[in-house]
Amino acid sequence: MYRKIYLVPLFLFLLISCKKNEATATANPKDSTAAVAYSDNPLPSWNDGKLKNDIIAYVKKVTTKDTPDFIPVEDRIATFDNDGTLWAEKPLAQELFAYYRVKKMIEANPALAQKQPFKAVVEKDKTFFEKGGEKALIELVAATHTGLTEDEFEISAKDFYATAKYPGKNVSLKQIRYQPQLELLNYLRANGFKTFIVTGGTVEFVRAISQDFYGVPKSQVVGTSFKYSFDDTSNSIKREPALDHFNDKGGKPAAIQLHIGQRPVFACGNEGGAGDIAMLQYSQGNTHPSFQLLVNHNDSIREYSYQEKDNLSLNTAAKNKWHVVSIKDDWKKVFAD
Amino acid sequence: MYRKIYLVPLFLFLLISCKKNEATATANPKDSTAAVAYSDNPLPSWNDGKLKNDIIAYVKKVTTKDTPDFIPVEDRIATFDNDGTLWAEKPLAQELFAYYRVKKMIEANPALAQKQPFKAVVEKDKTFFEKGGEKALIELVAATHTGLTEDEFEISAKDFYATAKYPGKNVSLKQIRYQPQLELLNYLRANGFKTFIVTGGTVEFVRAISQDFYGVPKSQVVGTSFKYSFDDTSNSIKREPALDHFNDKGGKPAAIQLHIGQRPVFACGNEGGAGDIAMLQYSQGNTHPSFQLLVNHNDSIREYSYQEKDNLSLNTAAKNKWHVVSIKDDWKKVFAD
Repeated sequence: MYRKIYLVPLFLFLLISCKKNEATATANPKDSTAAVAYSDNPLPSWNDGKLKNDIIAYVKKVTTKDTPDFIPVEDRIATFDNDGTLWAEKPLAQELFAYYRVKKMIEANPALAQKQPFKAVVEKDKTFFEKGGEKALIELVAATHTGLTEDEFEISAKDFYATAKYPGKNVSLKQIRYQPQLELLNYLRANGFKTFIVTGGTVEFVRAISQDFYGVPKSQVVGTSFKYSFDDTSNSIKREPALDHFNDKGGKPAAIQLHIGQRPVFACGNEGGAGDIAMLQYSQGNTHPSFQLLVNHNDSIREYSYQEKDNLSLNTAAKNKWHVVSIKDDWKKVFAD
Repeated sequence: MYRKIYLVPLFLFLLISCKKNEATATANPKDSTAAVAYSDNPLPSWNDGKLKNDIIAYVKKVTTKDTPDFIPVEDRIATFDNDGTLWAEKPLAQELFAYYRVKKMIEANPALAQKQPFKAVVEKDKTFFEKGGEKALIELVAATHTGLTEDEFEISAKDFYATAKYPGKNVSLKQIRYQPQLELLNYLRANGFKTFIVTGGTVEFVRAISQDFYGVPKSQVVGTSFKYSFDDTSNSIKREPALDHFNDKGGKPAAIQLHIGQRPVFACGNEGGAGDIAMLQYSQGNTHPSFQLLVNHNDSIREYSYQEKDNLSLNTAAKNKWHVVSIKDDWKKVFAD
């Protein structure tokens, strides 16, 4: 249970101002599914080199029958973080959605613009949230992400995705996905891995696009969740204005246990907020041979460049011999075309 | 959140004494997976008649392309209760497991037999739990189901399943599965449905056998869960002695939302404890054509005969035009051979 105390970091995170960047994104990639299990080059957007070789060697090793390293299909669980791992996170798409919800709600009811916490969002008044602390943030969560049915939320999220543009790039959110990761997801699936998204974002927000953007079914998305209740009169699920689980750091292995019920053999996250260390560590505790992959955002030209102050993720990766993606060096292309 | 207050009904339920019965069970069925999508008789253990025709007609209808009733594969979600729906529930397998844990723990530490709540279990002292109320029950949960890592729990559950015999029948737990339901699971899967178990039992207890017994992967089991925490020192998940979610009645649609993220189109439960009404109702709210199936335990010869005092499940089924399985009339065989 990660209740109210987590509302503060979540929404402070959401309220971080957009880091604009001149990096370019290109056209809409071909979607998911089709992939070749053992083609000569199953990862065309990855540069040739040690990392790409290691990924392919691992997959071949654990899928070769009658060897000690063989992993049965039911244990081929791969977990991927989303923000900063499968698509760009500067700013978070979820943050854009929170603003979108505020805007839509004010359009429907203009008087809201004069009311807190909407007023503070409209006026970009960060001191309101700093001063109001937890209470003000809960108010914003309650107002924008809860108090509606799941069916209503899904419609709202789909509307958002259909129209939203990514700041600084003027592309759709579908175009901020990382092409090399789409290939990696497909490559793993073609080799019998079941791919899951284990995101700090709220679960339904990611589920709204998980199949279309990543080929990942809704039931294979694990995320931050609100408290649900079933209302039998309206025959619908309602959200109450309280977080049930904040899916970051140690929350990720806990949610993997609850939802997936087994340790991943392949886990992929990114440095930037130290949010994926626990998931990668948990994966490494698998009794099967496992693979940990950490994306290092070091490409200020094509994507972004940002590091943790204490470099905890990269230091932990070095200590535990995890594989690190240098976006600059390992990815031939960053965004899909 | 269904916390402490639910410990009472759960464990009172677990402590219900075994209802012994002379019904016979037969040999071990062939396992899961293989099934024919449109064979002449995909459900051989179902008697010919309206119910079987309706099931087959529904599946054909919603899987026929270019018709208004067609359901895309990603929306073909089928949810099944476990106890009383996929296998017998008199007594609950989970109850047998609780007693097994007490026995094993006393073997390892005989002094426990003199300590409560173990002493009460050993002596079948129900008044201890009636008098001690919630506190005594929490103590029993803490002692038998928590305080160990998930890896340790899984070993314990597997040991239990390998040796346990079903009271009154002297067969393994694998042999209390319902053969017609195994065929139905296979038939649905062969037609592109993703099958989930949505059980009142604790989730890892069912996951320990879900693939082997039902062809359902661990990640497709949703159940009652304890509170988890990730311990990075031991790199493992620990359970704390508190229920996180009790997966019964309205808890089922809530957990379906959390884990699956969409309404099932096919939902199957049983009468006996009114635990599946909400799940079937929730399924009926699907915008796609949906199918609700309720197992009526009316066969005292081959299985068991038990009804709810107020007949709520059967009455709700009649009111909402759900399909009802009469075990007596609709199942050619009950247990697998």
